[in-house]
Amino acid sequence: MIRFCALCGSATTERVPEDDNRLRAVCNACGHINYVNPKIVAGCLPVWEDGRILLARRAIEPRYGRWTLPAGFMEVNESVAEGAAREALEEANARVEITDLYTVYSIPHISQVYMMFRAKLLDANVSPGSESLEVKLVTEDEIPWDDLAFAMVRLTLQHFIADRKAGTFVTRFGDIRPPER
Amino acid sequence: MIRFCALCGSATTERVPEDDNRLRAVCNACGHINYVNPKIVAGCLPVWEDGRILLARRAIEPRYGRWTLPAGFMEVNESVAEGAAREALEEANARVEITDLYTVYSIPHISQVYMMFRAKLLDANVSPGSESLEVKLVTEDEIPWDDLAFAMVRLTLQHFIADRKAGTFVTRFGDIRPPER
Ligand SMILES: [Zn+2]
Ligand SMILES: [Zn+2]
Repeated sequence: MIRFCALCGSATTERVPEDDNRLRAVCNACGHINYVNPKIVAGCLPVWEDGRILLARRAIEPRYGRWTLPAGFMEVNESVAEGAAREALEEANARVEITDLYTVYSIPHISQVYMMFRAKLLDANVSPGSESLEVKLVTEDEIPWDDLAFAMVRLTLQHFIADRKAGTFVTRFGDIRPPER
Repeated sequence: MIRFCALCGSATTERVPEDDNRLRAVCNACGHINYVNPKIVAGCLPVWEDGRILLARRAIEPRYGRWTLPAGFMEVNESVAEGAAREALEEANARVEITDLYTVYSIPHISQVYMMFRAKLLDANVSPGSESLEVKLVTEDEIPWDDLAFAMVRLTLQHFIADRKAGTFVTRFGDIRPPER
């Protein structure tokens, strides 16, 4: 993906720098190492005071038209929790209070890490942002299991429902490997 | 930091792309948006069967000469847990089994997220890797509190000692703001 140096615009070559053990895009002119890093997707599971969960239907690819929990790429100069709250606001005009880190899923084949928080929805007056077709508050029985956008959404919802029933919420981490996502 | 396009090498301009609300490095020639993303630092707290904790003394900047838990930048195409285990091997020649996600600290002003796991040290035969001056297994009383490299090391060790005393380990998240690090 990296063919030219971000600092000087010269061509890069894939090679292993001194004191390293991996191929990097090293600049032929200035020597700058142009690293590629995994990306964080920050999101949350917003719960209204009656127990219903906020879902949003995607207006963008991938998985256009499918249901998701609000989540998106974390930005620089914010915390993961701030990113999660920002995405809820952008995608669902939802004001939330982030309470706990809840699930962390690595997806190595696409170099992404999902970090999902539990959140208290502060205002039931939600509406679709530009990346959503519609948003809604659902009971457990209303979750569209066959129409969810990502494996991390299904797994996070499954854990949440089991934990709420058990009365104890436990932070979980794991990996999601292809073909499932 | 980004002045030239990774795809075509032309100059970029900082501007807000359509359907976005932030300044990005947009290529003047091909239009590619060159995003900057926060970085994940993956690490672990390796515990030997007698309860001692593995620490490593840094042979690199920042904080040359200070003590740390093994941790380093996550690579593409690995899980966070794999990255944490890899860093223990690289920095301390330590074979570990990652057991639980334990602390997650956002450091917004440097756009890094530390993800630290609890780990079982599988072999007490450890030795410094190229980024460490020395490594050692320490009891709680032997932790060099005044000579630790980063706030996240101190916080993770403090939680671990308190949780081990209480008999229950709880995953925590938080932010680290300047000037403390
Ligand atoms: Zn260069
Ligand atoms: Zn370009």
